[in-house]
Amino acid sequence: MNLLSSPLTTDLYQLTMLHAYFAHGMRDTAVFELFVRKLPPGRNFLLAAGLEQALDFLEHLRFGPEELDWVERSGKFPRGFAGHLAVLRFTGDVHAMPEGTVFFPNEPILRVTAPMPEAQLVESRLINLVHFETVVASKAARSVLAAPGKLLVDFGLRRAHGAEAGLLAARAAYLAGYAGTATTIAAPQLGIPIFGTMAHSFVQAHDGETAAFEHFAEAFPDGATLLIDTYDTEAAARQVVALARKLASRGIRVKGVRLDSGDLATLARHVRRILDEGGLPEATIFASGNLDERRLHDLLAAGAPIDGFGIGSSLVTSDDAPVLDAVYKLQEYAGKPRRKRSSGKATWPGRKQVYRHTDTAGCFGHDVISVEGDEQPGEPLLVPVARNGRRLHAQESLDTIRARAAEQLAKLPARLRALDDAATPYRVEIAPALRKLAERVDRATGETPALLR
Amino acid sequence: MNLLSSPLTTDLYQLTMLHAYFAHGMRDTAVFELFVRKLPPGRNFLLAAGLEQALDFLEHLRFGPEELDWVERSGKFPRGFAGHLAVLRFTGDVHAMPEGTVFFPNEPILRVTAPMPEAQLVESRLINLVHFETVVASKAARSVLAAPGKLLVDFGLRRAHGAEAGLLAARAAYLAGYAGTATTIAAPQLGIPIFGTMAHSFVQAHDGETAAFEHFAEAFPDGATLLIDTYDTEAAARQVVALARKLASRGIRVKGVRLDSGDLATLARHVRRILDEGGLPEATIFASGNLDERRLHDLLAAGAPIDGFGIGSSLVTSDDAPVLDAVYKLQEYAGKPRRKRSSGKATWPGRKQVYRHTDTAGCFGHDVISVEGDEQPGEPLLVPVARNGRRLHAQESLDTIRARAAEQLAKLPARLRALDDAATPYRVEIAPALRKLAERVDRATGETPALLR
Repeated sequence: MNLLSSPLTTDLYQLTMLHAYFAHGMRDTAVFELFVRKLPPGRNFLLAAGLEQALDFLEHLRFGPEELDWVERSGKFPRGFAGHLAVLRFTGDVHAMPEGTVFFPNEPILRVTAPMPEAQLVESRLINLVHFETVVASKAARSVLAAPGKLLVDFGLRRAHGAEAGLLAARAAYLAGYAGTATTIAAPQLGIPIFGTMAHSFVQAHDGETAAFEHFAEAFPDGATLLIDTYDTEAAARQVVALARKLASRGIRVKGVRLDSGDLATLARHVRRILDEGGLPEATIFASGNLDERRLHDLLAAGAPIDGFGIGSSLVTSDDAPVLDAVYKLQEYAGKPRRKRSSGKATWPGRKQVYRHTDTAGCFGHDVISVEGDEQPGEPLLVPVARNGRRLHAQESLDTIRARAAEQLAKLPARLRALDDAATPYRVEIAPALRKLAERVDRATGETPALLR
Repeated sequence: MNLLSSPLTTDLYQLTMLHAYFAHGMRDTAVFELFVRKLPPGRNFLLAAGLEQALDFLEHLRFGPEELDWVERSGKFPRGFAGHLAVLRFTGDVHAMPEGTVFFPNEPILRVTAPMPEAQLVESRLINLVHFETVVASKAARSVLAAPGKLLVDFGLRRAHGAEAGLLAARAAYLAGYAGTATTIAAPQLGIPIFGTMAHSFVQAHDGETAAFEHFAEAFPDGATLLIDTYDTEAAARQVVALARKLASRGIRVKGVRLDSGDLATLARHVRRILDEGGLPEATIFASGNLDERRLHDLLAAGAPIDGFGIGSSLVTSDDAPVLDAVYKLQEYAGKPRRKRSSGKATWPGRKQVYRHTDTAGCFGHDVISVEGDEQPGEPLLVPVARNGRRLHAQESLDTIRARAAEQLAKLPARLRALDDAATPYRVEIAPALRKLAERVDRATGETPALLR
């Protein structure tokens, strides 16, 4: 069974609930919405990502022979349950914000409308995919905003949380505006541009840096990037200058250097001078080593002459906010709007739409959340993407999504583009029609209207 | 190509370096060691995990037709490179600390001795696997220490960073002492015990809580755990009492209840009283909802009558420390010890061994790191696990590893078992033989001895 596509990549309670739904004939239409309850500290917006993987998962949902065999042998379920699973497919509808859309707390970014067992089963993996890519795209957008025009490359595979995290982080970073990734498999599997230089081990395996640089440049005569901080960065930069002269006569070009440790701002200035004075004004300086968007901001504010950055662990784990409060909640069942009123976790009921209002300067002004069908001005952000279990459109190219994200980030008001909490958060209004629906649901269930955030 | 086993799940620079190694005939034996440079704030120890997946990756390393085809068509490499890759297998030796071993900064937990191209290529995925499982096992150990004797269950799949993270987090938590996981596929794939109850959506899909509870209990007559916080927790607990009486006559047993929101300590006390007074003294109370080891500690210190905990996002992302400073560094090539002297990132050269000293009370006292072959007292922690590319022993069972971890955690001195930084960190000494080797390496390369931490 394939971990990445198996329907057993789900929480056991989805299956126990499925058994109870089947046992009681509860196959009416359920509507679930996926949203993020609140922003992490220091964050002003989120960037939606992961829809493509989510749709792929839904379209291919099925229990294969190995899964059914396990279900029968597990002792966890009564006889007959596997038979229901054998014929289960995803036959529902999906509405979603397109990937690369900026969004805010409590705004649904994905809605599933399907017979209850189908809609329930897919919860765990849908959140798993959409949450993670959204985490990384939202984090990546911050370095894109902090370092406009710089070449940003995802270096995170080794400390990503598993291989799928490595691949999907590369995707999320690319759609948010990164130039590409060091993760090789992202090229054959997703068509993402890949970048790579050399590691310290290559330098250490040689008896001197010059030998290492020369070997590497010979192997990549069209332009190698040489790592110069293994021993003494400035000394190595001078070796690069001498070597580049020698290699030029053989038609071998040195493209640039990489710094990976030390005081990057000072080193970059010194190395830039050494390269310029050594006749290599076009050689680029690339920096890496425990970088994040705040370090990028500080380095550029200090005028560090750095052309590009490799960003790893902080990006792919979103280390300041590795988790978003992303949930997938039942909003309607069998035609009746539903809500949860758990302390601190109450939800707005019913099928919803998000309307975005743009201000006179062309920036995002505020959003309104209302019930679907309520006539509201503004641009509706949720669009139909799948019907009866099948996609409505061809897969969007990553470059289309990347262009959308760039356009969306350009429309963010300046206060939301900063790296710290905006004094005035983005305004998200709850429309009167949605408030009335919540009151009606509470009255219908005989409960005191719950306090809502 | 399979993302989880493909050799292209690596950084591009591994491949560019491989090309340069092949081009210059650099196939001598390289020795790389994997270690963590420092502890995150608030942490006193780490728990080694992920070796099993690392060995599996090494044993099955090969470029298949799809990968070779991509390498040839990518335009990233000169002609002939794919031919070298086609015959590449991992033929080296591996030494490692067994999984479940407690370890400390700068101590190698895995050593690879292999021809340079092989040892280099595997860096990215080896760190990716060992780092992540070690991150989660180390995090899980903290809740195991904070809540001794309680049933701890991994609830993290939905906010784990991808499916592989979900599965490997379940494994790492189980070996650290968790009772099991909610991630279903961990049962068929790894034999880990799985746990599941019901979600709010199940309650919401019914017109009242009693109907939901009754349906669920009927579906699992041997003992259902009912989620009681969807609307009003104490009212729901009273419904459970009434229902349990009614169901008992039909031979249906209610096992317990789950709380997922609100003031868990107070609610657990009130619910316990309702259950006890209602004739359900054996019904268990299970709690979940944004828990971590500190919340567990506080709840138990407050005397909350909770029997078990579901811990999700904080566990599987290790939210306070989602990244460890884990590296894989060249320590020897072609028989010569090597080291890196980059500012703040210098390493100790050569093949090393870690010797552990136990104090008179049977607790871990201190460790000594020396060069391999240096005769030292204490227990050597690194043992041979693979030779010539093949495992030396049958795969360890997860229960064997889990028992080892329990034994190791029991030997931690009390100050290191606390949730905050110990006033006196664990002592790790560098043996004179290793210091001498570092000086010799520096002299041989004509450098001033680097400042070492």
